[in-house]
Amino acid sequence: MGAYTLSHDEKNRISVDIYGQSYSIVGRESTSHIRLVASMVDDKMREINTINPSLDTAKLAVLTAVNAVHDYLKLKEELEELENELKRLKG
Amino acid sequence: MGAYTLSHDEKNRISVDIYGQSYSIVGRESTSHIRLVASMVDDKMREINTINPSLDTAKLAVLTAVNAVHDYLKLKEELEELENELKRLKG
Repeated sequence: MGAYTLSHDEKNRISVDIYGQSYSIVGRESTSHIRLVASMVDDKMREINTINPSLDTAKLAVLTAVNAVHDYLKLKEELEELENELKRLKG
Repeated sequence: MGAYTLSHDEKNRISVDIYGQSYSIVGRESTSHIRLVASMVDDKMREINTINPSLDTAKLAVLTAVNAVHDYLKLKEELEELENELKRLKG
């Protein structure tokens, strides 16, 4: 089992289970943050599996990544709108 | 090849290639948005593969999802801070 870096400034190494596989995650984030991320990925994979039970694990995981990146971009748009509003308010 | 829903209000169905596999994505997002999401997932998988060449596709994709959910949560924290700042300024 290899170790995978969540960020460059290494600190914590914790083991998490995602969809029946063990992953060793290395990063400066807290253990609880890493566990939350892992459980969100696990949940999403199970959710997509319920909708498409014929998909293999690789495809499930790719579609989970697609969903996560989609959510990320939507949130980024929201953030940019707020930043602009804040700029206007601050003059 | 199945179809995977990016959002509930279906509109566009487009085919994208991620890490050598074809996926049919259904959603109300624009074609360019879906293509951007797919290319970001593809890029991240190739980046993680460069760091850990021994990983299989499923693990690469799971770690890509882990990274995307991590980025999402960090952005969400940032958004919440901005929302609070905005509330104070308006309040």
